[in-house]
Amino acid sequence: MVVQSQQRIYAPVARDLDVVVDNLAGVWSSQQTRHAAVARRLAHILATPGKRVRPAVTLLASRLWGRDPDDRTIKMATAVELLHIATLIHDDTVDSADTRRGRATASSLWGGNMAVLLGDYVFATSAIFVCDTNSVRLIRRFAETIADLSRGELHEMLDAWSPGVTRDDYFARVYDKTASLFSTAAESGAVLGGGDADGVEALRSYGRDMGIAYQIVDDLFDFQCASDELGKPVGHDLGEGVLTLPSLIALHSGKAPGLEEYLAAESSCRPSLLPEAYAQVRASGALSEARGTAEEYLDRAAAALLSVPASEARESLLGLVQYARLRVS
Amino acid sequence: MVVQSQQRIYAPVARDLDVVVDNLAGVWSSQQTRHAAVARRLAHILATPGKRVRPAVTLLASRLWGRDPDDRTIKMATAVELLHIATLIHDDTVDSADTRRGRATASSLWGGNMAVLLGDYVFATSAIFVCDTNSVRLIRRFAETIADLSRGELHEMLDAWSPGVTRDDYFARVYDKTASLFSTAAESGAVLGGGDADGVEALRSYGRDMGIAYQIVDDLFDFQCASDELGKPVGHDLGEGVLTLPSLIALHSGKAPGLEEYLAAESSCRPSLLPEAYAQVRASGALSEARGTAEEYLDRAAAALLSVPASEARESLLGLVQYARLRVS
Repeated sequence: MVVQSQQRIYAPVARDLDVVVDNLAGVWSSQQTRHAAVARRLAHILATPGKRVRPAVTLLASRLWGRDPDDRTIKMATAVELLHIATLIHDDTVDSADTRRGRATASSLWGGNMAVLLGDYVFATSAIFVCDTNSVRLIRRFAETIADLSRGELHEMLDAWSPGVTRDDYFARVYDKTASLFSTAAESGAVLGGGDADGVEALRSYGRDMGIAYQIVDDLFDFQCASDELGKPVGHDLGEGVLTLPSLIALHSGKAPGLEEYLAAESSCRPSLLPEAYAQVRASGALSEARGTAEEYLDRAAAALLSVPASEARESLLGLVQYARLRVS
Repeated sequence: MVVQSQQRIYAPVARDLDVVVDNLAGVWSSQQTRHAAVARRLAHILATPGKRVRPAVTLLASRLWGRDPDDRTIKMATAVELLHIATLIHDDTVDSADTRRGRATASSLWGGNMAVLLGDYVFATSAIFVCDTNSVRLIRRFAETIADLSRGELHEMLDAWSPGVTRDDYFARVYDKTASLFSTAAESGAVLGGGDADGVEALRSYGRDMGIAYQIVDDLFDFQCASDELGKPVGHDLGEGVLTLPSLIALHSGKAPGLEEYLAAESSCRPSLLPEAYAQVRASGALSEARGTAEEYLDRAAAALLSVPASEARESLLGLVQYARLRVS
């Protein structure tokens, strides 16, 4: 299959995505008269260019049954993007990350306290946007997604350094952290686009499986890509004691005794043991196995779309799968 | 007027408040099977005994037109209490507070990062409960209240140490920080209890004015009560550069030159200037003027209730006003 460019994939919803970006700008400009310093900080956060993949999924899914996205759909897509941004603000605060996509994070610029409150405000704003769908069903799904996102981060923090973490724990955490919001993005688009129950279920599956694959790929990057590509240092997860799929595969294969030693060590000894643990995960064959798992999820995501009518929007959603496949290899 | 005991005021809704407390317990017990450590932490936070004044207001307001609170109303009251608790978690994190009502705060026990994520989870849980009202109108009001709460905290942080803060800034901040949620608590009870437009408006006013008075009284406590009564050190606000009504009155009266000096000083000199600034606010007559303002708001809150039918529930809502009056004097 020919891999489309991101621009080509987004083409059916490019105009609608512009409205989403305008809505984001509206959030900070509406605060201009209340408090210029709040507006400036929100502008820095909300004007950060991103891939906008989640709102694109909502908009594309809403087109699958031949409707143009209406105002409710665009508001839903805006809510999805705002929720993603709010989560990043708190995650970067918790991780003490200095940069995100090459720009200074809120916490590094203004301190953790300010970042917590700005994140709360963006969370609230996302919830206000989702109310514009006028659908209690979608609002409830959205609220549950906020709970999933924070539970995923909580579990990640609490499970750090624990060699007892299972693959099931990992997949539950990945659903909460990433796949829940992808799934909500796709499902809500299908609901607003007039999909029937089977169509909505298909899009929910598509979003979930894309989200899981997306997170596995992200976790793989931590073991294979140069620092500047991802905007965070390689080995960051393992450095924080966070066991992702590659580490878990290596740990359970018995081929990474250095990883076991690293996890069991006193915290003062860990930095010196990290390079060997990291190298053993890489050498264990775990990366290729994890890559295979990501591809399985991408296959499932593509298969879920077979039941919905063929259209330009469906091609784009399949294009996103292919695009993610490129990141795996 | 005879001041009723808090127990007597709550009597008409005592059984319903027990269900609210059961709902709070359900939040953490539902996490027991997912992650025991999350459940334990949520239990510590949600089992903290509080005055439960906000859910009591919702439940009482819902009884004004003769209905017993139904499941939707009790879920709304639960959402209101959860939102209040979530806000306290993040506020205590931002303020680095060690205790709240004599119990260790989440941030002091488990660090700021864990507290941020636990707060996010409780925020999300409150949003899920409010969806059970099945009313987009109430859900939207709730989402706007979350935005108000975080904006109030943002403005407080950004306006610290600024002698240019006006009374209008203060009242806008107090609405956001405290009165918005009181107002939502009262208004939502009225909506769910079947109040007409005038009745709903009356309860919204009642909640707003009670909330403003409540916050002024809280701000007064910072100038007059012993540390152990409030659970935070006296002079805390001024120590953080937060100008509340007493400070603003003193500042604008010109009777507290030491306060002007304190605000203008280098941060290293401030601790030595704080006692004199604090003493000048106390000596300026500002406390009694602020007390008078709080009483005006309490008068308005009571007056708003005159338009709703007399009932046991109305007596209790008036009882809460009288109870707050006691705190003023």
